[in-house]
Amino acid sequence: TFALGDGVVSTWDDATWILTSSFIIFTMQSGFGLLEAGVVDSKNEVNIMIKNVVDVVFGGISYWMFGYGLSYGTDPGTNPFCGIGHWFVTSKDPDQMGLVYSNFIFQLSFTTTATTIVSGAMAERTKLTSYIIFSFFNTLVYVFPAHWVWADAGFLRQLGCVDVAGCGPVHLLGGVSALVGAAMLRARLGRYDSGKPYNTQPCNPTNSVLGLFMLWWGWLAFNAGSTYGISDGKWKLASKSATVTMIASIAGGVVGILASYATSGKYLVTDIINSVLGALVSITASCALVHPYEGVIIGSLGGLLCMFTPRAVDYFKIDDPVGAFAVHGMGGLWGIVAVGFFVDYDENQNMSNGQRGLLHGGGFYLLGIQPLKYTIGIRMDEIEETLGSDFVEHG
Amino acid sequence: TFALGDGVVSTWDDATWILTSSFIIFTMQSGFGLLEAGVVDSKNEVNIMIKNVVDVVFGGISYWMFGYGLSYGTDPGTNPFCGIGHWFVTSKDPDQMGLVYSNFIFQLSFTTTATTIVSGAMAERTKLTSYIIFSFFNTLVYVFPAHWVWADAGFLRQLGCVDVAGCGPVHLLGGVSALVGAAMLRARLGRYDSGKPYNTQPCNPTNSVLGLFMLWWGWLAFNAGSTYGISDGKWKLASKSATVTMIASIAGGVVGILASYATSGKYLVTDIINSVLGALVSITASCALVHPYEGVIIGSLGGLLCMFTPRAVDYFKIDDPVGAFAVHGMGGLWGIVAVGFFVDYDENQNMSNGQRGLLHGGGFYLLGIQPLKYTIGIRMDEIEETLGSDFVEHG
Amino acid sequence: TFALGDGVVSTWDDATWILTSSFIIFTMQSGFGLLEAGVVDSKNEVNIMIKNVVDVVFGGISYWMFGYGLSYGTDPGTNPFCGIGHWFVTSKDPDQMGLVYSNFIFQLSFTTTATTIVSGAMAERTKLTSYIIFSFFNTLVYVFPAHWVWADAGFLRQLGCVDVAGCGPVHLLGGVSALVGAAMLRARLGRYDSGKPYNTQPCNPTNSVLGLFMLWWGWLAFNAGSTYGISDGKWKLASKSATVTMIASIAGGVVGILASYATSGKYLVTDIINSVLGALVSITASCALVHPYEGVIIGSLGGLLCMFTPRAVDYFKIDDPVGAFAVHGMGGLWGIVAVGFFVDYDENQNMSNGQRGLLHGGGFYLLGIQPLKYTIGIRMDEIEETLGSDFVEHG
Repeated sequence: TFALGDGVVSTWDDATWILTSSFIIFTMQSGFGLLEAGVVDSKNEVNIMIKNVVDVVFGGISYWMFGYGLSYGTDPGTNPFCGIGHWFVTSKDPDQMGLVYSNFIFQLSFTTTATTIVSGAMAERTKLTSYIIFSFFNTLVYVFPAHWVWADAGFLRQLGCVDVAGCGPVHLLGGVSALVGAAMLRARLGRYDSGKPYNTQPCNPTNSVLGLFMLWWGWLAFNAGSTYGISDGKWKLASKSATVTMIASIAGGVVGILASYATSGKYLVTDIINSVLGALVSITASCALVHPYEGVIIGSLGGLLCMFTPRAVDYFKIDDPVGAFAVHGMGGLWGIVAVGFFVDYDENQNMSNGQRGLLHGGGFYLLGIQPLKYTIGIRMDEIEETLGSDFVEHG
Repeated sequence: TFALGDGVVSTWDDATWILTSSFIIFTMQSGFGLLEAGVVDSKNEVNIMIKNVVDVVFGGISYWMFGYGLSYGTDPGTNPFCGIGHWFVTSKDPDQMGLVYSNFIFQLSFTTTATTIVSGAMAERTKLTSYIIFSFFNTLVYVFPAHWVWADAGFLRQLGCVDVAGCGPVHLLGGVSALVGAAMLRARLGRYDSGKPYNTQPCNPTNSVLGLFMLWWGWLAFNAGSTYGISDGKWKLASKSATVTMIASIAGGVVGILASYATSGKYLVTDIINSVLGALVSITASCALVHPYEGVIIGSLGGLLCMFTPRAVDYFKIDDPVGAFAVHGMGGLWGIVAVGFFVDYDENQNMSNGQRGLLHGGGFYLLGIQPLKYTIGIRMDEIEETLGSDFVEHG
Repeated sequence: TFALGDGVVSTWDDATWILTSSFIIFTMQSGFGLLEAGVVDSKNEVNIMIKNVVDVVFGGISYWMFGYGLSYGTDPGTNPFCGIGHWFVTSKDPDQMGLVYSNFIFQLSFTTTATTIVSGAMAERTKLTSYIIFSFFNTLVYVFPAHWVWADAGFLRQLGCVDVAGCGPVHLLGGVSALVGAAMLRARLGRYDSGKPYNTQPCNPTNSVLGLFMLWWGWLAFNAGSTYGISDGKWKLASKSATVTMIASIAGGVVGILASYATSGKYLVTDIINSVLGALVSITASCALVHPYEGVIIGSLGGLLCMFTPRAVDYFKIDDPVGAFAVHGMGGLWGIVAVGFFVDYDENQNMSNGQRGLLHGGGFYLLGIQPLKYTIGIRMDEIEETLGSDFVEHG
């Protein structure tokens, strides 16, 4: 569960971990901003940076108003589909306020990350007014799945779904939303006129690679912070998460760099960035529950997948400037399935809810329920599409 | 007080919090540098970055030599106006050195932040030699007020003034110093020749927004770290501080973005940056002691104030390139007054010294003593002006 | 030793410190990237950023495969020269995995920092394919000295060598490797044709100074994290390390800025950056074991040394674009010798292995054994040179 440890001694240690992780996760906003600003034409850099501010500001205010409550509310009426209560998050109880506020700030850092994924895919052709309204309501796309997977009452959690740090609610959903958004908007003018549809190098590669580094380090806090504390056995899982996340991303980079050279004769910057990020997304669901060499497999395949997907997306003339669908959508999808194969039972904190993947003798159950999240992705598109057609197209 | 917890168990936990917060606060130096570098003409970028190095280097050496002692010295002679002792900070006692050095590194991160605020306002027209001498002595402007508000013997502390993370000594003072500095220097050549005095967009907006993001995250450590530990009830206040700081800044951004559009028909980058930063400054004094919805009120008003103030400053042809007075001066002023209205008694650590603000039944006492800090601001100007005329103008 | 505290309570506190430090140390990769990207011609910026990715990716994979084992393996066969075991780092023991993985992630952050130092010196004239192979095997240059100095079985450790945070294995070695690499490669075309061999200002100084700031803050975690925990007396040493590191770097900056003006009549950006970084390198070996005023001496001399060395290197027409040898090589050399003069016995954790430097009554023993590390530097060059001639020149 997401409750902090009951013991008096452990409480503030867990808070130290959660708060520090939250702070580091907020730096991912800068990372996304720079990654995206580096990719777009320099005249649109400022627009993309401001969009990332808007994600925090308007996504944040709606999360505080009703988003957190729909995810983690526990008032009467809370059900497997959504939470009730905690609107306009406030705790006046001196005993409880630590739990409420540390939980809120951590979840807020997740939700702003989730909502910002979409901004890149809609780069260079969305009016800011439309985007502001979109950001405010985009919270709705994230909060229900977060409830299903992480809240005690959530139906996917009760089925035994495993998703350590949000491969489904954050990445798969963000990536699919990005694809829907990109498809609904027309491609940027002239984008597919030339014979070279695949964008091999960002306009400002220094900014993009700096963005990659900032996301990389934020990811360590994202995944290791998702043990949601450090006391008891949680520090062991946090250490494991950090190591497996790093090794998986390294493996993704290794195969991405080699595959880029093998297929194009060059080391394409876009390929390198996408393969590292794709590996990071892929390992997000299982980081605390697989061994490093399994992380190598998950990250390598994730990296390859996310390196080649943009070529396919461009083939269909869907203009996703930053590869948001490739990295978050395809990486997220593979990461969720990988849980069904590789996850092992964890003796320290039972983070896998007693489940084992197919390769660890857990049979097909976990592998079978994990893809339910695809359904989430597809279902939530309908909300997205409604939002999109109302606010983005006619905005 | 600023003493670390007495209990053996809690001591190193508090140190973890204080050191980690200090490290994060040091990144605000990069944030200020980028924010300012983005605003000035590209040929002056390097000058402004080096000024931020000079703030750390020369401001830091004088703080180590005599600044820390004047703030937190406890030797005989220490009085309500200043501390005595701890010159050239060194502790050879194996038992005490942890307390001394963790305190020093935290306070050093505050003082370099305070002194760097001024650098922006003097951008593009101060000789570096003058600025080096100015930086060395500028420490003097900060250390006395820090003593008054935070040291046990400080007279404002004994009167019951409340200032969680330095709205007065850091921001109001920095902002007023910036105004004095900017007014004493002539405006940049040609700055007020055109018909559009208000600078609506930075020269390099990507750098400026990246600077905003870095300051934003540094502020989380600044405000949450000011609980000065994490043990006992402090983790609850740190969690609350982080949440209230974030919500206030979000509210400032919401009203700033809307007000910018309402008044100019555009989303001006400068307005957006100033409204978020202004909200962050405003909430600095009260972050651990108000509820999130009160943070929304404080942040919204702070954001609006700091968005519109630069227009007024430019009206008087005072050339403050980065809006340092608007953000830190006006935001700081409002933040200090807001304490008198909104602060509530805190049962966990008594951070409000038993005080309550007017709206929580505390009467007019707190509201009455808070503005004493204005006096500080105005008093310290005289030192500033002396420094300024000696070193900056005739430097 | 590098073992985590045995006490149950302290274990996860130490893990919090180690993991947080590791995460912050990884940001140094961005710092090196920006510092170097700012120095090189803008058309090579992307190449240098990608090299820093390659360092993490290929240096990281080889460290996981065999590097960590050669440094910290403890299987039968482990000897004073190298460790055996822990290949493809994995721990399936729920009790031990926390120790293994937190140790690994911390050491990984060190090794990627060590390997990236070389990349700058080879900037603008190494093929990426050669560099990839070089990165993979460059790990070998770092892992043996790390064993000698830090592993229980290491011979330098058993002799009583003191090196808190890797002045020898990370900096001296990295710097000497950089010199060897730079000398083997031809100078960049036209580099020494003009009459002004010394590069006084980076092409993109904003990026370089931002890189400096990122390295500065990463260094705090690097040095303070090297207490390798926070429990018992370690928090006192971590606080001292942070303070001494900061004061030494400040002193380096002070003398660097003044010396730059005194010798050239200008404040040269390159001088300022090198003097601050040089001071940071110099203090790395002794940060927890000297007093702040000794840090001022070490940092000042280190800063001067690293400011003037590039002029000498350029005199010999060895083209080291980012001053990697000056900063890491000369700074590292001085830092190691300084240990022999200034280090004092530490009552809290005995980090100096019972040794005292000459100036604290320890006689000549420590001063005598410290220079053994020079031998390391020179020995390892042979590996480097073999690697270099195979992969870099004929690559």
